[in-house]
Amino acid sequence: MLSESELIDGVLKGNRRALARLITLIEDEDLLASKVLAKLYKHTGKAHIIGITGPPGSGKSTIVTKLIPELRKKQKTIGIVCVDPSSPFSGGALLGDRIRMQEHTLDEAVYVRSMGTRGHLGGLARSTSDAVRAIDAFGKDVIIVETVGAGQAEVEIIEIAQTVIVTDVPGSGDDIQAIKAGIMEIADIFVVNKSDLPGADNKVMEINAMLELDSRQRDWTPPVILTDARSGDGIPELVEKIEQHIEFLKKSGLLNQKDLKRSRDELEDLMRDKLTRKLLEKLRDEPEYDNAIAKIAKRNEDPYTVAERLIAEFLVKYRE
Amino acid sequence: MLSESELIDGVLKGNRRALARLITLIEDEDLLASKVLAKLYKHTGKAHIIGITGPPGSGKSTIVTKLIPELRKKQKTIGIVCVDPSSPFSGGALLGDRIRMQEHTLDEAVYVRSMGTRGHLGGLARSTSDAVRAIDAFGKDVIIVETVGAGQAEVEIIEIAQTVIVTDVPGSGDDIQAIKAGIMEIADIFVVNKSDLPGADNKVMEINAMLELDSRQRDWTPPVILTDARSGDGIPELVEKIEQHIEFLKKSGLLNQKDLKRSRDELEDLMRDKLTRKLLEKLRDEPEYDNAIAKIAKRNEDPYTVAERLIAEFLVKYRE
Repeated sequence: MLSESELIDGVLKGNRRALARLITLIEDEDLLASKVLAKLYKHTGKAHIIGITGPPGSGKSTIVTKLIPELRKKQKTIGIVCVDPSSPFSGGALLGDRIRMQEHTLDEAVYVRSMGTRGHLGGLARSTSDAVRAIDAFGKDVIIVETVGAGQAEVEIIEIAQTVIVTDVPGSGDDIQAIKAGIMEIADIFVVNKSDLPGADNKVMEINAMLELDSRQRDWTPPVILTDARSGDGIPELVEKIEQHIEFLKKSGLLNQKDLKRSRDELEDLMRDKLTRKLLEKLRDEPEYDNAIAKIAKRNEDPYTVAERLIAEFLVKYRE
Repeated sequence: MLSESELIDGVLKGNRRALARLITLIEDEDLLASKVLAKLYKHTGKAHIIGITGPPGSGKSTIVTKLIPELRKKQKTIGIVCVDPSSPFSGGALLGDRIRMQEHTLDEAVYVRSMGTRGHLGGLARSTSDAVRAIDAFGKDVIIVETVGAGQAEVEIIEIAQTVIVTDVPGSGDDIQAIKAGIMEIADIFVVNKSDLPGADNKVMEINAMLELDSRQRDWTPPVILTDARSGDGIPELVEKIEQHIEFLKKSGLLNQKDLKRSRDELEDLMRDKLTRKLLEKLRDEPEYDNAIAKIAKRNEDPYTVAERLIAEFLVKYRE
C-alpha cells in the first residue's frame, strides 16, 4: 500500500505504479483518492483533454491507436482513458482494441487505462474526470477519453473534454442515427471513418447539411474529416484540426469560460455527494429510518413528505 | 392552468387532460408536481409495471403495440411510457412507432406518453418514475415502460419495473452484443424477435447457454420466447410469461422486497435532490460563491477542499 504522500510524490514524479494505484482508489471511491487529488489539483490544468465518441463499429479505437504515433511525432506525451459505461456488472470493454493499444504502453510517453462502471452512472462520469485529472498531474500533454458506446451516458462523460471528436461511418442505419442525435450537438470535429466504403462522401454532405440547418451562432464550425483509420489516411489532418481547435478556444477566451463552467459543475457535484453522504450516515444509524421506509412501501406515508421531514430534522440535529 | 386540487381530483377521476398536465409538470421539475404526487401516493402501488428494453431495431415498439390488444382481451387497462434518453437536446423519439401506437389512444383504456431528456440523466429516471406513479394513481392496471436504446442509462430507468423484458434479434453483431452485457443481467423474460430470420433458434440457444453459465442462485429462470411481432406470433405466450412472473414475485415475497428497496432508493434520491437544492439556493445568493469558483478555475484552490468548507459553513449558518 502506498501512503498519501507516496501517492502524491509518485504521481508528480511520473511513477506509473503510483498513478495506477490512484486511479484504482478513484474507481473504488476511496476517501484517500479525494485527499490525494486535492493536493494534486494545483498541478493540473495543463493537459489538452480530447474526447472521442461515436457509435460502436465506427473505428474509435483504431483512430486513437493511429493518433498516438502522430502526436508522438510532435513530441507530445499522451494519456488515454477508455470508458465503458455499458456494463455495470460484467465489464464489456472491447478486449481486442485494448490489447492493440497496449503496444503503445511499451512507450514510456504513453499511458493507457480502461475504466468500467462500478455501480452508479453518475459515479463513472465523476471517476473518469478524476482519472483524467490524475493523468494531468502525472504530466501528460494530451489526454484522450474514448467511450465505447454513444448514448446519453457517454455525453455526460465526454463533457469533460475541451475538444470533442464524434466519429461516424458511411451507411449507418436510421435506428443508430436516432441514438446519435445527442452526441451530434457536442461535436467540435466530425470524423467519417472507413472512407473506402460506399456512401462516405454522402455521409460528409449529410453532416455538413445538418450543421447548416443548425441555427445556433457559432464562432467555430465543426470540420468534417474523412479518414481510413486502418491505413492512417486523414489522421494527420485530424491532428491539425485538433490543434486548430485548442488554439481557437484559447484565443477566443472560450477555454477560460469552459474551465469556469466545469469548475462550477464539479464543485456542485462534489457538494451534492458529500452533503448526501453526511445525511445518510446519520440516518442509517437510526432505527427510525427503516421504519420510515417500511411505511413508504406500505403507502402509509409518501416519500416526498418523508424526505422533507428527514432533511429538516437533520439540519436541526446537526447543531446539537 | 389546473390548480393543485384540480390536478389531484382530475387524475384520480381518470381525467386524461389532468394526467397529461401533471406529467408535463413532472418533466419540467415543477414543485407543484411533487405536491400533487405526495397526495396521490397513497392511491398507487396497484399497477403491474413492465419494462421493455433492447437494442434499436429489435422490435420493442412493435411488441408493445401487439401486447396492447392481447392485454385488452383480459380486460386490463394500459399505460405506456416511451422513454428516449439518447437525445438531451433535440428529442430523438422514433416518430413512426409513436404514431402507430397512437391508434390505441383512441381506446379510452390505453394511455400513451413519450418522454425525452430535459437536462440531466438522473432527472429522466426520476421523471419516468414519477410519470409511472401518476399513471398508477390514474388507475391503469398495467404500465409498460419502453426505452429507445439499451445502454446503462436505460438500465437505470428500467429498474423501476417489476418485470423486465429484454428483446433481441437473430444475428446482431459483436459490437451490439457488448452494449447489451448490462441489460442481459436485469432480464426477467427474454424475447427473440423476428423469429423468421435465420439464426433465431441459435440466438435462443445462445441466451439459454449464457443463463446456464450464470452462477447466481435463481428462483426464477428467465424464459426465452421467440416472437414475430409483426404477425403477432408468440405474443400470447409472452403475456402468459408476464403473468406468471408477477405471480411468482407475489408468492415468493420478492414483490415486497423490491418495493422496500425501491422505496429506500427513491427516498434517498429525493433527499439528495432536496438537500442539494437548499444548499445551492443559499450559495447562489452569495457573491463569495462566484469568487470561490473563479479560484478553483485558476487552480488557487481545489474543489474538494472548497466543497467541504462550503458544506460546513452551510450547516452552521442554517441554524441562524
